[in-house]
Amino acid sequence: MSTATTTETNLAFVLRAIKDVAFEDRPVPRLRDEHEVRVHVAQTGICGSDVHYWQRGRIGDFVLNSPIILGHESSGTVVEVGSKVTNLKVGDRVAIEPGVPCRRCNYCRAGSYNLCNDTIFAATPPWDGTLAKYYTVASDYCYKIPDHMNMEEAAMVEPVSVAVQICKVADIRAHQTVVVFGAGPIGVLSQAVAKASGAKKVIAVDIFKARLEFAKSFAADETFLPPGAEPGTDPVEHSEKIAHDIKEQFGLGEGADVVLECTGAAPCIQAGVNVAKKGGMYVQAGMGKENVVFPITMACIRALTIKGSIRYSVGWYPNAVDLVASGKVDVKRLITNRFKFEEAEKAFELVKAAEEGVFKVIIEGVQ
Amino acid sequence: MSTATTTETNLAFVLRAIKDVAFEDRPVPRLRDEHEVRVHVAQTGICGSDVHYWQRGRIGDFVLNSPIILGHESSGTVVEVGSKVTNLKVGDRVAIEPGVPCRRCNYCRAGSYNLCNDTIFAATPPWDGTLAKYYTVASDYCYKIPDHMNMEEAAMVEPVSVAVQICKVADIRAHQTVVVFGAGPIGVLSQAVAKASGAKKVIAVDIFKARLEFAKSFAADETFLPPGAEPGTDPVEHSEKIAHDIKEQFGLGEGADVVLECTGAAPCIQAGVNVAKKGGMYVQAGMGKENVVFPITMACIRALTIKGSIRYSVGWYPNAVDLVASGKVDVKRLITNRFKFEEAEKAFELVKAAEEGVFKVIIEGVQ
Amino acid sequence: MSTATTTETNLAFVLRAIKDVAFEDRPVPRLRDEHEVRVHVAQTGICGSDVHYWQRGRIGDFVLNSPIILGHESSGTVVEVGSKVTNLKVGDRVAIEPGVPCRRCNYCRAGSYNLCNDTIFAATPPWDGTLAKYYTVASDYCYKIPDHMNMEEAAMVEPVSVAVQICKVADIRAHQTVVVFGAGPIGVLSQAVAKASGAKKVIAVDIFKARLEFAKSFAADETFLPPGAEPGTDPVEHSEKIAHDIKEQFGLGEGADVVLECTGAAPCIQAGVNVAKKGGMYVQAGMGKENVVFPITMACIRALTIKGSIRYSVGWYPNAVDLVASGKVDVKRLITNRFKFEEAEKAFELVKAAEEGVFKVIIEGVQ
Amino acid sequence: MSTATTTETNLAFVLRAIKDVAFEDRPVPRLRDEHEVRVHVAQTGICGSDVHYWQRGRIGDFVLNSPIILGHESSGTVVEVGSKVTNLKVGDRVAIEPGVPCRRCNYCRAGSYNLCNDTIFAATPPWDGTLAKYYTVASDYCYKIPDHMNMEEAAMVEPVSVAVQICKVADIRAHQTVVVFGAGPIGVLSQAVAKASGAKKVIAVDIFKARLEFAKSFAADETFLPPGAEPGTDPVEHSEKIAHDIKEQFGLGEGADVVLECTGAAPCIQAGVNVAKKGGMYVQAGMGKENVVFPITMACIRALTIKGSIRYSVGWYPNAVDLVASGKVDVKRLITNRFKFEEAEKAFELVKAAEEGVFKVIIEGVQ
Repeated sequence: MSTATTTETNLAFVLRAIKDVAFEDRPVPRLRDEHEVRVHVAQTGICGSDVHYWQRGRIGDFVLNSPIILGHESSGTVVEVGSKVTNLKVGDRVAIEPGVPCRRCNYCRAGSYNLCNDTIFAATPPWDGTLAKYYTVASDYCYKIPDHMNMEEAAMVEPVSVAVQICKVADIRAHQTVVVFGAGPIGVLSQAVAKASGAKKVIAVDIFKARLEFAKSFAADETFLPPGAEPGTDPVEHSEKIAHDIKEQFGLGEGADVVLECTGAAPCIQAGVNVAKKGGMYVQAGMGKENVVFPITMACIRALTIKGSIRYSVGWYPNAVDLVASGKVDVKRLITNRFKFEEAEKAFELVKAAEEGVFKVIIEGVQ
Repeated sequence: MSTATTTETNLAFVLRAIKDVAFEDRPVPRLRDEHEVRVHVAQTGICGSDVHYWQRGRIGDFVLNSPIILGHESSGTVVEVGSKVTNLKVGDRVAIEPGVPCRRCNYCRAGSYNLCNDTIFAATPPWDGTLAKYYTVASDYCYKIPDHMNMEEAAMVEPVSVAVQICKVADIRAHQTVVVFGAGPIGVLSQAVAKASGAKKVIAVDIFKARLEFAKSFAADETFLPPGAEPGTDPVEHSEKIAHDIKEQFGLGEGADVVLECTGAAPCIQAGVNVAKKGGMYVQAGMGKENVVFPITMACIRALTIKGSIRYSVGWYPNAVDLVASGKVDVKRLITNRFKFEEAEKAFELVKAAEEGVFKVIIEGVQ
Repeated sequence: MSTATTTETNLAFVLRAIKDVAFEDRPVPRLRDEHEVRVHVAQTGICGSDVHYWQRGRIGDFVLNSPIILGHESSGTVVEVGSKVTNLKVGDRVAIEPGVPCRRCNYCRAGSYNLCNDTIFAATPPWDGTLAKYYTVASDYCYKIPDHMNMEEAAMVEPVSVAVQICKVADIRAHQTVVVFGAGPIGVLSQAVAKASGAKKVIAVDIFKARLEFAKSFAADETFLPPGAEPGTDPVEHSEKIAHDIKEQFGLGEGADVVLECTGAAPCIQAGVNVAKKGGMYVQAGMGKENVVFPITMACIRALTIKGSIRYSVGWYPNAVDLVASGKVDVKRLITNRFKFEEAEKAFELVKAAEEGVFKVIIEGVQ
Repeated sequence: MSTATTTETNLAFVLRAIKDVAFEDRPVPRLRDEHEVRVHVAQTGICGSDVHYWQRGRIGDFVLNSPIILGHESSGTVVEVGSKVTNLKVGDRVAIEPGVPCRRCNYCRAGSYNLCNDTIFAATPPWDGTLAKYYTVASDYCYKIPDHMNMEEAAMVEPVSVAVQICKVADIRAHQTVVVFGAGPIGVLSQAVAKASGAKKVIAVDIFKARLEFAKSFAADETFLPPGAEPGTDPVEHSEKIAHDIKEQFGLGEGADVVLECTGAAPCIQAGVNVAKKGGMYVQAGMGKENVVFPITMACIRALTIKGSIRYSVGWYPNAVDLVASGKVDVKRLITNRFKFEEAEKAFELVKAAEEGVFKVIIEGVQ
């Protein structure tokens, strides 16, 4: 079935143990079944979770017990198709959805495949990622991109899909007011998707002025830089004041229709609950500490709906491809740094440093 | 328009200041407009919030600045109807919905009248309550009861409506598994309404064994008495263990479809978030401390929907009347103590004492 | 309370009987309660229903039994406010929502005020309309417009609100494909609102080429002019062919996510049901014959959701004001003919003639 | 992998062509993949669609072009399990969900597997059914039944699941009023599931008095036998009258919250649309003629939601097993006639005859 020559190898960027990465020549991966395709990876964005595994070896229940190839935000060209593949052919340029669920559990059968416990997710232990010459994946999790979209844009479809999921979980409707905490990549993409969903006013909140400036130039209608707390102020009261100030400054009245929390930071969570209007929607998308002090009585009295957003659902990848292809979300502007495959570790070091000017870092695939 | 004789008075049980109650002869209240009715109050249940105002003088933003008549869970007989009233006539026996909203704000117009900022709510400062001979109220917030339902049952329609709202907010569907934290009046009523909504299995959780026994005999399929934490255990970890044990013991697999939190206690909140299945529903109905340590990352990763429930919405009072009238919810069993109107303070003292054997206390109206 | 001078009159354009209109000097209307405002009407659009009452004297259960003032799509300036009005002041320029519901029935209390049986709706027998110097209306059904919006645009907020309701009933989400039958005023406005709601592709269908050209220049991405049926063709089969052709030509695959039927014509209804994808949404907004031959088995097998849209709900008027004020919906382009108040009958004659070049006709108010 | 002895055969009841059935010795079916199980079929109910294929050879797009084994409502015992099966073991007694979808199309991935175009559905051409000794099926479409449930009850889980789907599509909530047109097997099961979902009042409508009597004894609160139309009456007007009479007789006021149409007959469809209250829900589950005269303007003005129900979705089979196992739906009462496997044709003849006393016919499997 395979068209790979026997001598060909599959150069990969491997996380061997915590803080221990290396290039390895792996065998060219075989199609696991007749519905899979093999993709020659073109571009791969780096995500905070990649760095997290590198530095700490675990996220929640996912623990690095054996080496894995890193990377999960990728585009590429199809080089091999299984016998039952009908939606793709060799030569197609694609964006790769990095998690393929089991298709058989109740979550999958009910359409919530983002909750499947048995998903094969790229670069999540024990599964290999996409920072290799080749990656094999189910053909229905691979999306053909239009000719005018380049491979960098296609790699960026992954974070756009995360933002689409956040906005879908929030059930954003036309004419709503939306406050987004966080103006990093996921924050600004959520702002852009909210606008593309017809939001009337999108307000970006961040503690970095440069990020807010970018957010304003990208999609947000308004920005808010929260003032520091006076020494001795109760943190929750400070959050209430921030929420109050946001409502006042932007004429939100009783509060925002929708709050998207993309930081995971306790002060943002607390301010977010307070800035939502009664009966409003709050979505937790950022992840920080496991537990935070939370204004539960306020959430109860105000009859909020609070939802968690994780990964993506069916249809979001095509939506994200459309958003990028149509120019509604100009992802190229997010990419600040580009690296050759052999410079992968340098790229990871740059993301780890988390300098304000570094927004999105992308690594070119093996030629 | 009024049938009240000029000399008649309106004996009322008045909260004059914190911890200072007295009987007063108030004037017979007049209909505020032609849509109102005047009700001769028959029975009034006592709620925790009544005691709270009595002992502390405030709940949230509602502060006792001038005397108010107490009481808001009442039934009675219509003795006067405004000229535009069509749904009621003098002599009708009714359950009284204690909060009448403004009908003009966006919340009211959108059908979320429980969120109206200008609701006239009985016994919520500055509004008088129902512990008086007479109470006037908008006719569409008064519900005729069938002949076979007695006035005690009609007074209990109020807490049943609270439970209906909780189950509606939770969007309980047939065949779901439901864990209810709390087996006090609202807890057991929520369990009963969940069963009447087709729930497959309802599990009651409480720290009082006697309450669980009552819950089991009332509506719950199963009960769970959480073990105390070992000394030195982290509270959040203890809550996770409780959640784990509930799932194990009752075969909930990944968790409950729905969690109803009717206590407001931090350990219950923490256990509740952990006992909900991925994609599940958690409703906060109990109110305790303003802020609690909350497993926000768990809520995010598990894609929970968390909603606050407050008061009631249109249709719930008729639903509650039906539930009581049809025998699906046997509210008589909840009433443990009955008092004459002149014994009202004694009744309040009893509720304040919060003995385990005292479930629901009810006060007869002025003859 | 009233600032009207006693001698002032209220020139009105009155429908006295079928096909019998006249100008009358009516008394200046008084505020019905302290929540009302009186508006000096500035501009009034003419709607098909106005012409219908003029020519036939009834629509469904609404029958002309006594004279009524015509007109219901109006803007104006507030000249008097009731004592309890807080949202408006004299001099405010407003768009008028023409139907004020009873606020007390179950539909109103549940937020479905468009279904209220006791709505006072302008120019719907027996209620007077807005084609007069003055109109009084509840203040919460009057919406202040921004300074840069003119009175013609404000009058057009009414049909925009109808289109907002249609799109809300259809629950249009970002990235959907939408087929709209009809490219008259409501059709093209629905197309524009769908685009503003993030629709990926909007396809307009009409039998007039000029209307499709306008639709394309206004908001639609694509247009479709259905071919006439071959003589002897079964009408339902012809509709199936049209549906098939639309799907083929615009790459809709299994069909459109959403179909908005704004004509009420049987062939469009039949084609519409067939063009929706399985599990898709079809909204009936146009009204023609009472009964049509309907592909019910197709609707069943394809698991469609079919909904009727009528009038508007809370929030749609402000949304429509925003859509017009922000330039997202350029209503000025719809107005093809303008008349002075004294030319009102001529304006009605023009609408009745239904020439293809006449799109929206508007009448200036009494100075 | 197979435990079948090489000499064993698989006696099957085969539809060879229209009106041409025969018993054939087929090979024992092999597991198609390691997730499948093989079931020794115990009991099989006969459904109208089985008879339809037998008599006419097609339903919609499904055409009998080659012989198929009939039957799709079956229970049985697992006799072989694939290597990756974890939920079942040999000897488990199961109810079989007869349609296994492709798991890869957008419908499947979105949780709407009842809409999958590539479902392998038992006894739907070209797929073989369950009227054979053995049937192989994906293990996640096989549901273990409790010990106290017998094989006849397990076979009846299929029509119960159809009724669960109808009630889920209708989104039936506690306390609603429900009118069900049709008191055949699917009608009475829908009535029972509606009651188990907390419906306040369920009204059964049928033209056969005996069926209504059964419905009343089974689950319906009330029954209605529509009077015949006076000669010369317009059919649609007659339907309106029936709707009016149902509303009057059972105190439904503006109409029923929910209408379930389980007949497909035009008069029922027309009456059904008219009996739903404004904003109400109407579900089309019965299938009769392709096209019917339909009160579309009424549906529009009354803002109805009309939905089609087809097959079942994830979770409904377990729900149906619970409903049967718990005694909430006593399916044994529906079975009026039992046949040995070798009498299969006689059983089909009996269903075809459609006598009033024959409700549900069941065929025992091959020993």
